[in-house]
Amino acid sequence: MAKNKKKLKVIPLGGLQEIGKNITVFEYGDEIIVVDCGLAFPEDEMLGIDLVIPDTTYLAKNKDKVKAIVLTHGHEDHIGALPYVLKDINVPVYGTKLTLGLLQYKLEEHGMLSSVSLNTVKQGQTIDLGVFKVEFIRSTHSIADTVALAIYTPVGIVVHTADFKIDYTPIEGEPMDLARFAELGKKGVLLLMCDSTNVEREGYTMSEKTVGEAFEDIFMNAGGRILIATFASNVHRVQQAINSAVKFNRKVAICGRSMVNVVKAAMDLGYMHAPEGVMVDIDTIHKYNPENLVLITTGSQGEPMSALTRIAASEHKKVEIAPGDLVIISANPIPGNEKLVSRVINELFRKGAEVIYEALADIHVSGHACQEELKLIHSIVKPKFFFPVHGEHRHLKQHANLAHKLGMPNERIFVMEIGKVLELTSDTAKISGSVPAGKVLVDGLGVGDVGNIVLRDRKHLSQDGLIVVVITIEGDTGNVAAGPDIISRGFVYVRESEDLMENMREVVKKALDKCEDKRKNDWGARKNAIKDSLRDFIYEKTKRKPMILPIIMEV
Amino acid sequence: MAKNKKKLKVIPLGGLQEIGKNITVFEYGDEIIVVDCGLAFPEDEMLGIDLVIPDTTYLAKNKDKVKAIVLTHGHEDHIGALPYVLKDINVPVYGTKLTLGLLQYKLEEHGMLSSVSLNTVKQGQTIDLGVFKVEFIRSTHSIADTVALAIYTPVGIVVHTADFKIDYTPIEGEPMDLARFAELGKKGVLLLMCDSTNVEREGYTMSEKTVGEAFEDIFMNAGGRILIATFASNVHRVQQAINSAVKFNRKVAICGRSMVNVVKAAMDLGYMHAPEGVMVDIDTIHKYNPENLVLITTGSQGEPMSALTRIAASEHKKVEIAPGDLVIISANPIPGNEKLVSRVINELFRKGAEVIYEALADIHVSGHACQEELKLIHSIVKPKFFFPVHGEHRHLKQHANLAHKLGMPNERIFVMEIGKVLELTSDTAKISGSVPAGKVLVDGLGVGDVGNIVLRDRKHLSQDGLIVVVITIEGDTGNVAAGPDIISRGFVYVRESEDLMENMREVVKKALDKCEDKRKNDWGARKNAIKDSLRDFIYEKTKRKPMILPIIMEV
Repeated sequence: MAKNKKKLKVIPLGGLQEIGKNITVFEYGDEIIVVDCGLAFPEDEMLGIDLVIPDTTYLAKNKDKVKAIVLTHGHEDHIGALPYVLKDINVPVYGTKLTLGLLQYKLEEHGMLSSVSLNTVKQGQTIDLGVFKVEFIRSTHSIADTVALAIYTPVGIVVHTADFKIDYTPIEGEPMDLARFAELGKKGVLLLMCDSTNVEREGYTMSEKTVGEAFEDIFMNAGGRILIATFASNVHRVQQAINSAVKFNRKVAICGRSMVNVVKAAMDLGYMHAPEGVMVDIDTIHKYNPENLVLITTGSQGEPMSALTRIAASEHKKVEIAPGDLVIISANPIPGNEKLVSRVINELFRKGAEVIYEALADIHVSGHACQEELKLIHSIVKPKFFFPVHGEHRHLKQHANLAHKLGMPNERIFVMEIGKVLELTSDTAKISGSVPAGKVLVDGLGVGDVGNIVLRDRKHLSQDGLIVVVITIEGDTGNVAAGPDIISRGFVYVRESEDLMENMREVVKKALDKCEDKRKNDWGARKNAIKDSLRDFIYEKTKRKPMILPIIMEV
Repeated sequence: MAKNKKKLKVIPLGGLQEIGKNITVFEYGDEIIVVDCGLAFPEDEMLGIDLVIPDTTYLAKNKDKVKAIVLTHGHEDHIGALPYVLKDINVPVYGTKLTLGLLQYKLEEHGMLSSVSLNTVKQGQTIDLGVFKVEFIRSTHSIADTVALAIYTPVGIVVHTADFKIDYTPIEGEPMDLARFAELGKKGVLLLMCDSTNVEREGYTMSEKTVGEAFEDIFMNAGGRILIATFASNVHRVQQAINSAVKFNRKVAICGRSMVNVVKAAMDLGYMHAPEGVMVDIDTIHKYNPENLVLITTGSQGEPMSALTRIAASEHKKVEIAPGDLVIISANPIPGNEKLVSRVINELFRKGAEVIYEALADIHVSGHACQEELKLIHSIVKPKFFFPVHGEHRHLKQHANLAHKLGMPNERIFVMEIGKVLELTSDTAKISGSVPAGKVLVDGLGVGDVGNIVLRDRKHLSQDGLIVVVITIEGDTGNVAAGPDIISRGFVYVRESEDLMENMREVVKKALDKCEDKRKNDWGARKNAIKDSLRDFIYEKTKRKPMILPIIMEV
């Protein structure tokens, strides 16, 4: 029984207590495999940040152990950090065809395509990765070619659902391989890791097919041009829009960079189909009558630079909204995007379009399983231990409650945090220690160079702006040679506040006068005197607290 | 028929194409009355702004015409701008007892209480205001003592529903006076102005009483302390929490400044009741067992400085979360607040509390009418013209559609914008011209001194921070005497970017060297040279665009 002396370590480096940047480490002895490697979008307070990637210090430290990165599907929160992480840890990547097809675009953008080993796997296939075996199980989600994983380890089988819903009538291919989950359950599953996103919702998530039916109803009654906004990655949603267009004799044009990329990849790889002549270039849409045209576009989240947002604001070069247009927003706002989406809807209405959105019709379904689907998975997999994943704390907690209600003892359920190590033998599991984990902020080309101090300053500047005070001092005497000059930005409209600015200069002068001779050469003291007096004066006059930046020059 | 030569002008100065700052002007000849005077909360891009009030330039210009301001209820978006507007236009204010009670707190804070004429009216009462008569009709909403208005004008009756829902079983007092609406409809109503907030929702809004039933179920099964977070202004919600506490033998403590204020006002005025000894001071809660205690608190929207948010973050002086606590968040997140609320929920779970929130139970009902209620109002009021109010464009548009489906011709429906004038005679209505209208931003003590340039700078500073470049120049020679000194804030963590900072100095020096002799005294040219060269260099190195502020001092 020597092999069981070593333990399996499951270490989430992202994806818990948050929605985004999913990545989990599986370690046994001196071998590691990694499941997914996603990014997260910045929180509101991360001012100026472009995206957030997981802290993979632990992987960098154990570089030699890492055998592979295994991907479950092609969403940003599962593949988006790869271009950054692969720079440190260049190991083979395994995924299904579409997943790797989407990854290729990213790697190309980073000029890394040639240096990464991409290995295509099929649903149903099992691969050997050192001490681990990984089986890719057919699954259904809001992106095609999604897989769940069975990870065979020396201490037992781990089933990782990845993101999923149970769609009995998927748009293409077979339904989720539930029989395989049941078989594994029969064999005995050590640990279940299961998607928690929709655990707060009762019942079942509807089939993707219901959206196609809603599209058909809408197309049937539409007299003018139709625009459909949805997630670029939702290949099946786009396919259904194309199907409806074909049925009602409309041409289809694609709008928005990521939509163009995904449609191209999906068509090339055989995940999307359109009869000859249906797809037309966006530059040629003026040739067709509105009633013979469908535009499929990005921007379903109201993202400021997206195609639909620019169309709504009349800032798009190729598409203009006209009365008679019908816009279908085939997505729900992701939490935090509600106001952006609402703005786009208002703007479209104002331009004379009809708009159909989630509050009005069943034009979107989620990609994640609701309570009844989760119960089904728990019941057939019958794991010894359970580790809810993919959710904020509230979701993980509710998922733990759900498992408990299905009969699992609380001590076998692990609501984890990133960086915590779950250590398993064939019949025990416990949280033992932790490894570095967290957020790395990406701003432009900078990865990790924006930290708390920089963000705190950005926040401060954003709230009340900035006041720069400059004086020039004679080096030998310490006397003021020029200034104080005062410049403000983001504080008040200067032309209407000349008195205030003049008073501020007086306050600074007085503060400098008060600095006794012996402190003349103590620049720190002078700066503090300027700062303190100006801060108090400004707060009294305006109840604002701009950043005050005193600068002393010496000649 | 001389009197009908003059026309009634209805001029919304806020509350359309937005949720917030409701205010409408009714003008006939040289007499004006104003209905409501609310504030709005700043949009995300209004960095550092505290609140937004309507532009009332039009009222200030017509100061002598304004007879009164009439209030429908005590919510911030209906009374919150009064302290600002009354400074310009000090006219009598009319409202019901609780509405004026809440207004008093605001006026006191602004030191204005003694200078304003507050006039209490009762539900059912009619008052004369010059050429207008205003009847206050009993209504139901998420704050007690709400009224709808019938405004009698020389050209006909205007019915203004204000914010409402049809609650057949309100917590205190009689239901909405639907019979009066029907009577007015019989008489003939010229114009209906009706709440559009919930027009996208099918069916009926549930009675406030259902929340009390949900509270009782929860209290019945709760073994520890209960915290209930809700809107301070929802007097009936708080009353129901108190009722449940009494029933299950718990004491009640109040937490959060606005909750304390509203409960005090409501108790003083007789809108809230508790048996002797039930209410206890927050400072004494340690004396009671958890199972005998209910805390009612602010913070149901996850507002950063609110009591519940501070409690969740362990930053509250008097209340600490302990395992066994049960927190009920009796509110839905207002659009834009979803993430804040979610954070508080996650934090409470982490501290060991159970949390019940909208996704899990029926612990909140809206204060606004859904589609079937709106249809009822339209059907009994049977107005000649219809003007949907209180909503973003999408809501106004859907409300217009609803009225049209009920049989009203489109040319009798007016989807308006603020500042537009709706001009009515006894049988015509049209949009004729416009008056100044818009947003006035309040930042600290400054009202209107923060405009687009200041906001644009704050935005810029918030995204990539700031770089200040200072040089001192000899006045007679134009030679650089000191500098360039470079200071950055919110850009990069300087200690880890010393090379970059050093390179930036070199770039500036080179740019200055290039400025030919004849341009030495052209400070603008020197500043531009610094700005342009540094901007290009920084963008190339970092793909960021900080604000660059060149400062030249002369000695």
